Amino acid sequence: MSEILFRDRVRDKDRLAVREIVTSTAFFSRAEVDVAEELVAEHLTKGEESGYFFVFADSPQGRSLGYACYGPTPCTACTFDLYWVAVRESMRGRGLGKLLLLEVEERLKDLGGGKLIAETSSREQYAPTHRFYLSCGFQMEARIGDYYAPGEDILYFTKKIGRDQAMD
Amino acid sequence: MSEILFRDRVRDKDRLAVREIVTSTAFFSRAEVDVAEELVAEHLTKGEESGYFFVFADSPQGRSLGYACYGPTPCTACTFDLYWVAVRESMRGRGLGKLLLLEVEERLKDLGGGKLIAETSSREQYAPTHRFYLSCGFQMEARIGDYYAPGEDILYFTKKIGRDQAMD
Repeated sequence: MSEILFRDRVRDKDRLAVREIVTSTAFFSRAEVDVAEELVAEHLTKGEESGYFFVFADSPQGRSLGYACYGPTPCTACTFDLYWVAVRESMRGRGLGKLLLLEVEERLKDLGGGKLIAETSSREQYAPTHRFYLSCGFQMEARIGDYYAPGEDILYFTKKIGRDQAMD
Repeated sequence: MSEILFRDRVRDKDRLAVREIVTSTAFFSRAEVDVAEELVAEHLTKGEESGYFFVFADSPQGRSLGYACYGPTPCTACTFDLYWVAVRESMRGRGLGKLLLLEVEERLKDLGGGKLIAETSSREQYAPTHRFYLSCGFQMEARIGDYYAPGEDILYFTKKIGRDQAMD
């Protein structure tokens, strides 16, 4: 993969970039794409107080190829939620998602993060997502049955943040 | 216990009643008491759109003795969160908390609720809370370690909503 530049600062045009990236995956509903953009808008309006932090992966030409969104879990001392990781369809399969997660973890170490949590559905459609988290060193730590809907559980993939945590 | 009247409609003076009830337990911090009142205020401003529903237990003289707050879990089809159950200290130990939970469950049946979730801390201070949920037919279905802080896990007590669910 050619050079990737990671960037924390959120720009107005990231609203569109996030829509494009998330839409390109063909994985999310229109409502979910709207939510993805809203999180960017929240950050642009409120800054860190929004509770949404971003890392963008840009090409040297300034094109955003993927991003991650995370933030402190309310009412916790040092737990963070991973809200979103998405990579442009044209860039899939090159390890960019894993690099984005590594960037998030580096930032969490600086923020004193103790644990990162990714919530996902048990639906078969999300099997690649589950494999992705496991390959990044997450564990499936908890599960609540029939959470999203009858037959659709919520899975909590978690990773302890620290210098000794490895990825595959 | 003398007659108890259960009431769903939220009144302006419930802001104060909720502060009194929650404070009387000597269990919650000032910040938590503020949050309890804010949920009432949210309901008064936005109604059902607030996502916070209430059941109050009033004496025949109109004094609120306890209450429960619950609401639909975002992004789920038929899961509900139990946000708060509290009873005036002077009324403790008479089964009013359990009656309030039964009232919540009756309402969830009407709303098509499938599952009720109560999140709580693993701290020893909350052992009576854990016993309360278990005695009301909840199960401790999931747990995430070091969630609230190092050494303090989150426990998810859940109960399936349906006509065949019993309490002790």
